Amino acid sequence: MKELENKILTEGKVIDNSILKVDSFFNYCIDISMLRSVGKFIASHFKNVDKVLTIEASGIAFAVAVAFELGNVPVIFAKKSKTAVTSTDENYIAMVHSFTHGIDNNIYVSKRFLNENDNVLIVDDFLANGAASIGLVQICQQAKANVVGVGIGIEKEFQGGRKKLQDLGCKIVSAARITAFENNKPIFSTEKY
Amino acid sequence: MKELENKILTEGKVIDNSILKVDSFFNYCIDISMLRSVGKFIASHFKNVDKVLTIEASGIAFAVAVAFELGNVPVIFAKKSKTAVTSTDENYIAMVHSFTHGIDNNIYVSKRFLNENDNVLIVDDFLANGAASIGLVQICQQAKANVVGVGIGIEKEFQGGRKKLQDLGCKIVSAARITAFENNKPIFSTEKY
Repeated sequence: MKELENKILTEGKVIDNSILKVDSFFNYCIDISMLRSVGKFIASHFKNVDKVLTIEASGIAFAVAVAFELGNVPVIFAKKSKTAVTSTDENYIAMVHSFTHGIDNNIYVSKRFLNENDNVLIVDDFLANGAASIGLVQICQQAKANVVGVGIGIEKEFQGGRKKLQDLGCKIVSAARITAFENNKPIFSTEKY
Repeated sequence: MKELENKILTEGKVIDNSILKVDSFFNYCIDISMLRSVGKFIASHFKNVDKVLTIEASGIAFAVAVAFELGNVPVIFAKKSKTAVTSTDENYIAMVHSFTHGIDNNIYVSKRFLNENDNVLIVDDFLANGAASIGLVQICQQAKANVVGVGIGIEKEFQGGRKKLQDLGCKIVSAARITAFENNKPIFSTEKY
């Protein structure tokens, strides 16, 4: 998606040919016009979605933008810690390794919110090694929900997440698909999405 | 706002006349149609907003819905922990006491994203004792930004947050303003918002 690619080129920063910072418009200070365009792009590639599933915190804004374009379907976000001690919920649980922080974390979705009748679009602002998205797929599998696909804002394809999700049978659409960093500039895939 | 009040009455759960659970439609599994209505209601009460400021995680969806209705102004969310070790950002910092979890936490906003030229609408899904919103006001004060007001989804007025924010000079608009719980049912304010 050219609009997002151009924004990454002009406002993103690549550090040491490995880290892409887009926090000035995408995942901290959020350019809402851009977010809506990206949401529209992702939504246009998927049909028959009942629910959008993401992970807190930075995936939430993106999930809302996608859900708007899918006719206001509900958004659920997986939590990185169990909810308040007052909760008696049973949860679907998956383990996710964070390379940024170097630790393993469980993610949780209450069993009240996903079941075998749901057709779920998983979305996340980033796809790198795929750990977070695969955790969300595992949660859908536990719920016996149907995964319609995975919608991603910015993908770093060379980190292998796409391959792993494809091996799980997922259709993946990314608004910006980066195949490499060269001289601290992103190189975008020539594939359509 | 009647639509949200009715939803709270039909789908919310009050526990021990003190805790209101609305996670089936508002802050975990999110009813996006409802969220858009609430965003529209809040946005209609404020003018000349440049940026919407909230706090992760559950405030983000609501902030995006408000920002959509304010002409796609940017959304910034305060973080509950410092960003990745790779970040060299200086931050505005405020201390927030969580009554739910019984601990004090710092919240952070990068100095890159707020400054003295900004007219900021603070939004949050809940207002109770006001700790989170007051933390966001303090962050705006550090940035010398102008606080246009505070927009809230669901307010528990009897917990005192409104009074404290008014003492700080803030205009407050809540989509649902609860003055008490009686027999595990919310009583809504007769004030307009």
